[in-house]
Amino acid sequence: MYPKSLQELIDQLTILPGVGQKTAERYALHLLDSSAHDIEQLARSIIMAKKNTHYCKECGNLAEEDICEICIDPTRDKKIICVVANAKEVFAIEKTGEYKGVYHVLGGLISTKQGILPDDLNIEYLIKKAHNSEEIILALNASVEGEMTALYLAKKMHDIANVTRLGFGLSIGGYLDYTDDMTLIKAFEGRKKLLP
Amino acid sequence: MYPKSLQELIDQLTILPGVGQKTAERYALHLLDSSAHDIEQLARSIIMAKKNTHYCKECGNLAEEDICEICIDPTRDKKIICVVANAKEVFAIEKTGEYKGVYHVLGGLISTKQGILPDDLNIEYLIKKAHNSEEIILALNASVEGEMTALYLAKKMHDIANVTRLGFGLSIGGYLDYTDDMTLIKAFEGRKKLLP
Repeated sequence: MYPKSLQELIDQLTILPGVGQKTAERYALHLLDSSAHDIEQLARSIIMAKKNTHYCKECGNLAEEDICEICIDPTRDKKIICVVANAKEVFAIEKTGEYKGVYHVLGGLISTKQGILPDDLNIEYLIKKAHNSEEIILALNASVEGEMTALYLAKKMHDIANVTRLGFGLSIGGYLDYTDDMTLIKAFEGRKKLLP
Repeated sequence: MYPKSLQELIDQLTILPGVGQKTAERYALHLLDSSAHDIEQLARSIIMAKKNTHYCKECGNLAEEDICEICIDPTRDKKIICVVANAKEVFAIEKTGEYKGVYHVLGGLISTKQGILPDDLNIEYLIKKAHNSEEIILALNASVEGEMTALYLAKKMHDIANVTRLGFGLSIGGYLDYTDDMTLIKAFEGRKKLLP
């Protein structure tokens, strides 16, 4: 019922995650109201981002060059490696501005449900790097897949490296009675002496 | 912190309605994972939709030609004109498959808050067409702006045309206790005898 090229755009927009017919309609109609200049810039940005963004050969993070800005940075401690599932987690951790080591992006998590096996992930090179590391910090989701992957990696590397994982517990500013059971149990397990 | 061209894409994606930094990040990272072919098709669709979609010279609806598919259809009753604010409402009504008249798209609603005056809308030509009409059906939102616009149009046209507006009331399948006050009041006003 929509003009053909508009309907095509609506169909195309549903490739975005979580975007169904209704949202795609709203986006498409909004785009038609935008200036031709904005439209062209958006289209160009999509092409250029895809063309210019690669995976860092050292850590699997997103990069415009062969090596990402973090791996190439001489002030980052290469002996401390934070292992994450996806590049977006690198950016989440970088935003805190606290972490001074480097990263290793697995490209996913081991998942029996989705049929993702260890061989499908960027694990081999991590183990190679682990030999010369001081610490391997596993920063993986607290999901079934995250736990499974953490366990797999810990078993693979505990002879050759100091493998740790991020602590679980209450959120800062969060309410105890709104915290889910698993997190509460983890928070109890991770309890610490207040005074020495 | 993201590679430059990725950050540019994220910034560009925030022009979509209701899309903030977080959602734009999610969309952009998903697009990077899509095939180059899908990416190019999306970019082309954006450009082509903007280029090929115009406003119908007769009714203001979206069209690929000068005149939209509804206005050009000889089976549609040109003497019954349904007035809507935006083209997306045409498509919502068309989906019902019940309406056999034509449309007139105002391009918005009169709004003191947003400073939209009658002169900013596609009203003049509607009044011209109203002279030869059998019925002008106002299908406008039940908002302050919708009411204001309906009142303005009714006053302008009641001497020259039969102006009606869509009925208000309960939603089919809706629950009375979840219905807002204004709708309930309108439903009472619009009550009808069950048996003659």
